[in-house]
Amino acid sequence: MSQPTPDSTMFLEIINHFVPTVLQTMAGLGAVPGKGNAHAPQPSVLAGISGSIGLGGRVHGVVYTAFSPSLGQMVTEKIFGGAAGEQDVNDVVAELTNMFTGNLKSVLCDRGYNCSLTIPTVVRGDKITISAKSATISVNNSFAVEGHPDPLILHVFAVLQ
Amino acid sequence: MSQPTPDSTMFLEIINHFVPTVLQTMAGLGAVPGKGNAHAPQPSVLAGISGSIGLGGRVHGVVYTAFSPSLGQMVTEKIFGGAAGEQDVNDVVAELTNMFTGNLKSVLCDRGYNCSLTIPTVVRGDKITISAKSATISVNNSFAVEGHPDPLILHVFAVLQ
Repeated sequence: MSQPTPDSTMFLEIINHFVPTVLQTMAGLGAVPGKGNAHAPQPSVLAGISGSIGLGGRVHGVVYTAFSPSLGQMVTEKIFGGAAGEQDVNDVVAELTNMFTGNLKSVLCDRGYNCSLTIPTVVRGDKITISAKSATISVNNSFAVEGHPDPLILHVFAVLQ
Repeated sequence: MSQPTPDSTMFLEIINHFVPTVLQTMAGLGAVPGKGNAHAPQPSVLAGISGSIGLGGRVHGVVYTAFSPSLGQMVTEKIFGGAAGEQDVNDVVAELTNMFTGNLKSVLCDRGYNCSLTIPTVVRGDKITISAKSATISVNNSFAVEGHPDPLILHVFAVLQ
């Protein structure tokens, strides 16, 4: 049975499925997706600690996550089971971003859109404005994380070849 | 004749060659590489308008450029031959980053390290701190651009497979 071509709605469904799964598995924390936006306007304004990882191949794109400093701290301490420093928080943000993107890659690969991941980078800033003009897919959502008032934000930019 | 494996010094030589070439071709501007750092410490602190594009495949990595707002404006107006708005500057930063990275990709491919590019993103912020802990190659340099006091900065993070 042929699979449908991935579109914006499918990207949103994928992140809505995997973000809670990864957070539950890694940190034992529940996460509830917001309404989301399958056609998110650009630029996207993020703040705090943002993980980023690219996709190259039949899908070109980049996934950004954004954690407030205190959300990043809370999730990291939950995973570590104790106190965590700034570098620990960077590591956790990078690794969670890698896991979200790895799951997205795996689903895209199953649909015939093979791609490879770039290395994760972590960007910190008070106000980070991100745009990817060439992206035909621009999807974002915020996730309410158990035990913290600040949402986790995910933004995916992509072009299918 | 077998080619040497790309290393940090080679990455630095590649960017030192291609950044001036691209700037000369696109904007008619001379650019002189600084001393550079083939083992640049992390995190890297950038400011202003930063282009980013990833590499996936036998090379995993990401290239960041950073322009001060007035340097980005000057280069854009030189390319356009007239006034340019904020989106024009974003477009030029994205496209120049794409060309620097495309040339790097091409040289790496000639050495047997095939990789594909992700889409360019543009990040704006007053102080952007970037780290890529998993990178074994971390190279940066600043380039003195003709007619402007602010340098253009390039930072490449990579891992070879």
